[in-house]
Amino acid sequence: MSTKPSKDLETFVNPEPGRDYTIRIDIPEFTCLCPKTGQPDFATIRLEYVPAAACVELKALKLYIWTFRDQGAFHEAVTNQILNDIVAAIQPNFLRVRAEFNVRGGIYTTVVAEHRNPEWQAPQPVHLP
Amino acid sequence: MSTKPSKDLETFVNPEPGRDYTIRIDIPEFTCLCPKTGQPDFATIRLEYVPAAACVELKALKLYIWTFRDQGAFHEAVTNQILNDIVAAIQPNFLRVRAEFNVRGGIYTTVVAEHRNPEWQAPQPVHLP
Amino acid sequence: MSTKPSKDLETFVNPEPGRDYTIRIDIPEFTCLCPKTGQPDFATIRLEYVPAAACVELKALKLYIWTFRDQGAFHEAVTNQILNDIVAAIQPNFLRVRAEFNVRGGIYTTVVAEHRNPEWQAPQPVHLP
Amino acid sequence: MSTKPSKDLETFVNPEPGRDYTIRIDIPEFTCLCPKTGQPDFATIRLEYVPAAACVELKALKLYIWTFRDQGAFHEAVTNQILNDIVAAIQPNFLRVRAEFNVRGGIYTTVVAEHRNPEWQAPQPVHLP
Amino acid sequence: MSTKPSKDLETFVNPEPGRDYTIRIDIPEFTCLCPKTGQPDFATIRLEYVPAAACVELKALKLYIWTFRDQGAFHEAVTNQILNDIVAAIQPNFLRVRAEFNVRGGIYTTVVAEHRNPEWQAPQPVHLP
Amino acid sequence: MSTKPSKDLETFVNPEPGRDYTIRIDIPEFTCLCPKTGQPDFATIRLEYVPAAACVELKALKLYIWTFRDQGAFHEAVTNQILNDIVAAIQPNFLRVRAEFNVRGGIYTTVVAEHRNPEWQAPQPVHLP
Amino acid sequence: MSTKPSKDLETFVNPEPGRDYTIRIDIPEFTCLCPKTGQPDFATIRLEYVPAAACVELKALKLYIWTFRDQGAFHEAVTNQILNDIVAAIQPNFLRVRAEFNVRGGIYTTVVAEHRNPEWQAPQPVHLP
Amino acid sequence: MSTKPSKDLETFVNPEPGRDYTIRIDIPEFTCLCPKTGQPDFATIRLEYVPAAACVELKALKLYIWTFRDQGAFHEAVTNQILNDIVAAIQPNFLRVRAEFNVRGGIYTTVVAEHRNPEWQAPQPVHLP
Amino acid sequence: MSTKPSKDLETFVNPEPGRDYTIRIDIPEFTCLCPKTGQPDFATIRLEYVPAAACVELKALKLYIWTFRDQGAFHEAVTNQILNDIVAAIQPNFLRVRAEFNVRGGIYTTVVAEHRNPEWQAPQPVHLP
Amino acid sequence: MSTKPSKDLETFVNPEPGRDYTIRIDIPEFTCLCPKTGQPDFATIRLEYVPAAACVELKALKLYIWTFRDQGAFHEAVTNQILNDIVAAIQPNFLRVRAEFNVRGGIYTTVVAEHRNPEWQAPQPVHLP
Ligand SMILES: [Ca+2]
Ligand SMILES: [Ca+2]
Ligand SMILES: [Ca+2]
Ligand SMILES: [Ca+2]
Ligand SMILES: [Ca+2]
Ligand SMILES: [Ca+2]
Ligand SMILES: [Ca+2]
Ligand SMILES: [Ca+2]
Ligand SMILES: [Ca+2]
Ligand SMILES: [Ca+2]
Ligand SMILES: [Ca+2]
Ligand SMILES: [Ca+2]
Ligand SMILES: [Ca+2]
Ligand SMILES: [Ca+2]
Ligand SMILES: [Ca+2]
Ligand SMILES: [Ca+2]
Repeated sequence: MSTKPSKDLETFVNPEPGRDYTIRIDIPEFTCLCPKTGQPDFATIRLEYVPAAACVELKALKLYIWTFRDQGAFHEAVTNQILNDIVAAIQPNFLRVRAEFNVRGGIYTTVVAEHRNPEWQAPQPVHLP
Repeated sequence: MSTKPSKDLETFVNPEPGRDYTIRIDIPEFTCLCPKTGQPDFATIRLEYVPAAACVELKALKLYIWTFRDQGAFHEAVTNQILNDIVAAIQPNFLRVRAEFNVRGGIYTTVVAEHRNPEWQAPQPVHLP
Repeated sequence: MSTKPSKDLETFVNPEPGRDYTIRIDIPEFTCLCPKTGQPDFATIRLEYVPAAACVELKALKLYIWTFRDQGAFHEAVTNQILNDIVAAIQPNFLRVRAEFNVRGGIYTTVVAEHRNPEWQAPQPVHLP
Repeated sequence: MSTKPSKDLETFVNPEPGRDYTIRIDIPEFTCLCPKTGQPDFATIRLEYVPAAACVELKALKLYIWTFRDQGAFHEAVTNQILNDIVAAIQPNFLRVRAEFNVRGGIYTTVVAEHRNPEWQAPQPVHLP
Repeated sequence: MSTKPSKDLETFVNPEPGRDYTIRIDIPEFTCLCPKTGQPDFATIRLEYVPAAACVELKALKLYIWTFRDQGAFHEAVTNQILNDIVAAIQPNFLRVRAEFNVRGGIYTTVVAEHRNPEWQAPQPVHLP
Repeated sequence: MSTKPSKDLETFVNPEPGRDYTIRIDIPEFTCLCPKTGQPDFATIRLEYVPAAACVELKALKLYIWTFRDQGAFHEAVTNQILNDIVAAIQPNFLRVRAEFNVRGGIYTTVVAEHRNPEWQAPQPVHLP
Repeated sequence: MSTKPSKDLETFVNPEPGRDYTIRIDIPEFTCLCPKTGQPDFATIRLEYVPAAACVELKALKLYIWTFRDQGAFHEAVTNQILNDIVAAIQPNFLRVRAEFNVRGGIYTTVVAEHRNPEWQAPQPVHLP
Repeated sequence: MSTKPSKDLETFVNPEPGRDYTIRIDIPEFTCLCPKTGQPDFATIRLEYVPAAACVELKALKLYIWTFRDQGAFHEAVTNQILNDIVAAIQPNFLRVRAEFNVRGGIYTTVVAEHRNPEWQAPQPVHLP
Repeated sequence: MSTKPSKDLETFVNPEPGRDYTIRIDIPEFTCLCPKTGQPDFATIRLEYVPAAACVELKALKLYIWTFRDQGAFHEAVTNQILNDIVAAIQPNFLRVRAEFNVRGGIYTTVVAEHRNPEWQAPQPVHLP
Repeated sequence: MSTKPSKDLETFVNPEPGRDYTIRIDIPEFTCLCPKTGQPDFATIRLEYVPAAACVELKALKLYIWTFRDQGAFHEAVTNQILNDIVAAIQPNFLRVRAEFNVRGGIYTTVVAEHRNPEWQAPQPVHLP
């Protein structure tokens, strides 16, 4: 497998397609460039999803995240772009992307966006005491 | 852009208007003056909102917060004023303002106020297990 | 204003009466006497309320809390008494009193009591993702 | 009052019977014996209840907990037994018992059991923002 | 009892079958092999379940977990396999399996899967204030 | 034994007089009055000492601390007074008193004072790797 | 006493001049202006000192710190200036000033400066085990 | 090996007698009885030692600690007794015993005692930057 | 001033050259490339120094750190290079560089290197009790 | 490079041989077998060393740690063995090995061992205020 930045999000077949279950992936090492000043921005990206037919391959996800390293990106736009790209790759039942940016000028910013398959029903949560 | 205190809350066009998503902004460096004693008060201001047509510009928000520096302001009133000012600027679908004031006389005070667009429906939360 | 213990809970006019919003006040320095042994008890008192026409004045609240200093008080009774006294003073839409007592004999006790205005509807909570 | 282990759970009259309120009691010093090996087990016991006519007396509760010190007890059974004994003593509207056992062989076990008075309605929770 | 790895999940009779209660078991010492590279993977496995007729025996559970030590296993597949094996052994009313894998290449992965007995109703949660 | 405030610091015979060892006592519930305003001040008092012939009795220490409850006391003076009183009672080889006062006006104050028996040699510390 | 910013550092007589003891004062609410951009900077100032004939009065210290609120000040220079001003006021045996500035541009800065009376000997520290 | 309380501290041969190295053992589950009131006391016992010819066997240490379960013991005396017993069993180059007792009456007590072989030199500590 | 990566470490004149004092700078956003695989590495860089005639300018330091973004660098070598470059720029009395790298393959690495002006004496530390 | 367990500790040339500096490596995923019961033990291994001519290669270190996976090893012996093996491979000026074992039977054990090149002088530590 390649070890260069790549927008190609490889997938694999969901091993338990008959069950709704959760996959969470945290990536504390996201970095891109501020489109206004050209200086580096840093963030932690957190994904949580319910797969349908496919799961996203972890190493491909890492190379995809790497492609933002030299790309200018606004906080609100880049979060929605990551959501759109992963939805296009694996068509999940549900996907949430949370981007927690490092402090700039004394201000902390976090952006959260979600995709829901309109034909999918979120499972009724069970909260045991 | 100016680097002086300014009540002018600049905005920019929401890059993903077709989706309800969340923007959180934490500002740990709010300071104003106590209207009774004239002494400085300190607080952390936390915003969370769902944008409609516009988002609030971060640097303008910082200059806006700066305007309270030499202004007398009661805890309950200033929290509601920040809410009202940001609502006027960006007309969001939802905005919550939380002001956590530093201890005074052994007492900690926090004030939280919200605005909801009456025509907007909060998304049904998905709690994955 | 007086700086002596006082049961007189002064109030001020709610600056934003048209909006349901939350005021939280934490008082880590409550102390009273154990009615059985006469020895000092210590607790943190936490209030959260939605004001109607009036808010409770912070300094008066502090002097009110001070009145328990030399008073014997059972855990369950004193928590309900504080609730009753503040309700009498400001008639809030909602008030919760939480008293977290310091450990005694290896046992930690907390008592929580609430008042709700029966004509008031709690706002539907918005949980953003 | 006695200072010996005792199964006798003394009670006192609920000082605010007209209001549903919460009493939480944490006991980090529970110890019993493993019925298989005879070795000591340790746990933290957490109670939360809504009293009806009576409250459980703290010192009596401590002496009751002490009775397990030399008694063999399985995790699942002892948690249910404590629940049953306190219910018999105070007939509360609601009681939850949570037993968090110390690690054994690299495994952590917690057991939680509840009693609800079938004629009692849990108060609708108010979650202020 | 044996002290070797074993897929045999011994059980015991639920001591309080008339009550829905919760058993939580945390196993921070799960290790298996990556099926791609053959290198060790590490995870914390967290179970929570409501027993029906039977409970899972703790020492047998430990020997079962041990069987993965020299077995290749994908994150998503192994989580579902543990769920399926315990369901087969004790037919619980509810079982949740949460596998938190250690970081690999700067990425953290967690997988959560659940089984629900379709004839079982989750208890209505009581959230005391 | 009395359960009233008392300046009488009872002692008992050091059970291991031939060895220099350390006794640490933390008292998070110290309270006195501000001599300027009459309002309550709160502090945590921390003692560490090396006993000579006598140790200080814990319950007597608690009653002694209680005597400050209605006494006006400056931060610097009260810390030195506690040091002097305990030295008079037990003549220790070493005593350190540390008073950590609660925040007032946004400022935190701590005062630390020590007594050393001039004929006593502090043990050479052993710092194991 | 005044409640306006003031460079006048009032003092009071050391109540225990025959003993070397420590006074620590933490001020988390320091703010000044950046001399380059005019924007506010924030810091926590921590003092620790051994008094000689005089101690610094707490309220005066607070009013002194307040004078920096509208003053331009470089990190390194303002820390040394605070040190010099307090030394001039109380001539202590020892004074350490530590200024921890809030993050700017992803960078955290702390400056620490000390004054020692050349005729004063620091006490030999006692580290009890 | 027995699984009953036993004062017999079994040992094994130090596997690296030519090197001074450190063994630390923390036992959070110590319990004894208060000799005044007969009620249970709880503590965490922390050992650190440099072995000479022998090391203390862990399971024997656990059974030894267990012997205090039904024994009355003052804080200062029991700490020194544990020190003396382990010194008698393994004659270490150095042993430190630290007993951290649970809070009683709002007061926390810790006792620390050490044994040093007079012919042993503590290694010069290396503090790498 | 430029806002591009630059090896040029601008300096300014030490405002208090007659006093040895400490400047600490933490930079949590260092990133470079692994020279073996070409993939990004991440670290926190911590500096502490005692200035002589010059101090390092903060914004220039930020641009200097930025130059490593697309540079291959081994952990041990890059830490020493940062040390050497800052020493060349400001000739400090003392400089310590600490690089804490993010986890890779389950392993955490930190490298610490120091420069000392051989004619400079480190100040005798004062540890107040 | 191999990806199998291997006792072969590859090294590389120290890039800054003229300077004493520190390399710290933390390995939270050590596992071996208990020589008495055959069950798995788990530990965190922490190394800190000052290199002489050579440094230890990280991936080789990981494969070396892997070799203990199916090996019986006592706590005290395995810590000393790791120390001896790394000393043999890189002949460092200084090496400290710290092994923190997971809890067993309610007891936590840590073992620390060091090697010092007798001709090497530890650098005089500089503690800046
Ligand atoms: Ca599915
Ligand atoms: Ca971050
Ligand atoms: Ca704050
Ligand atoms: Ca209202
Ligand atoms: Ca408390
Ligand atoms: Ca009731
Ligand atoms: Ca526990
Ligand atoms: Ca883990
Ligand atoms: Ca306090
Ligand atoms: Ca003096
Ligand atoms: Ca700060
Ligand atoms: Ca030895
Ligand atoms: Ca404890
Ligand atoms: Ca200098
Ligand atoms: Ca070297
Ligand atoms: Ca561990």
